[in-house]
Amino acid sequence: MIREAKPKDVSAIFDLIKGLAEYEKEPEAVINTVENLYDDLFVTNHCEAFVAEAEGKVIGFSLFFTAYSTWKGPIIYLEDLFVLPEYRSTGAGSKLFDAVVQVAKDRKVARMDWQVLEWNTSAIEFYKRKGATIDPEWLNGRFFFEEH
Amino acid sequence: MIREAKPKDVSAIFDLIKGLAEYEKEPEAVINTVENLYDDLFVTNHCEAFVAEAEGKVIGFSLFFTAYSTWKGPIIYLEDLFVLPEYRSTGAGSKLFDAVVQVAKDRKVARMDWQVLEWNTSAIEFYKRKGATIDPEWLNGRFFFEEH
Repeated sequence: MIREAKPKDVSAIFDLIKGLAEYEKEPEAVINTVENLYDDLFVTNHCEAFVAEAEGKVIGFSLFFTAYSTWKGPIIYLEDLFVLPEYRSTGAGSKLFDAVVQVAKDRKVARMDWQVLEWNTSAIEFYKRKGATIDPEWLNGRFFFEEH
Repeated sequence: MIREAKPKDVSAIFDLIKGLAEYEKEPEAVINTVENLYDDLFVTNHCEAFVAEAEGKVIGFSLFFTAYSTWKGPIIYLEDLFVLPEYRSTGAGSKLFDAVVQVAKDRKVARMDWQVLEWNTSAIEFYKRKGATIDPEWLNGRFFFEEH
């Protein structure tokens, strides 16, 4: 079952975020905290989320925010989409993605953006089946200010 | 001279956005309007901007917004940086970029993101000289809802 995230889901969402970072051997890269995530989702509204539930627990989430394009105005940016490995191929990821697409349509934005790792061919095929464009033309530039 | 954009700058910024789209032969891709850009910058605050002035006119701008990272929390996203061709190599672009970096530092965010086209070697070198990481590992996924 897919539904909007509620305050009670924050620690489950954060556990999934942290678990993925540990799986990727980058636990120290997560400087976010469960308290900050709570504020960002439900106080300052820096982001919004859907959760997937199965057998009474949160087994996946999609997290998004309103970004901006000079050409298109406000757009929806899907920051993260994750489903526990044992619940993949159940349709949960597809429904979490579709829920964000529906938000973009409901808010009448002109575009929805996200990113996918170039080696993640199963995700790329998944997005292409959804009708998305996957574009290798842009590179990510980043500054890290980790001292903060 | 670099300064925060003011309401009186909106039509000059929009002309630069539109001019670039015409140069790129994609004028119809700009569905944003000068009225919407005004609201986004000064009413809803979906985005913020700096302008570069020379000889009494706006000759460049940088436009940014607050994005979100599940790992880092709120981050600064530089959406657009543009300087009129005849004012390049004057340091205006560098100062417009540095102004946004300073915002990121002042707000104590952990990261500042942007994108650069893979063939734009002069921009890539510019960013690398600034100390940025340029990462080709992620591909952009996009849905367009142009009917809205």
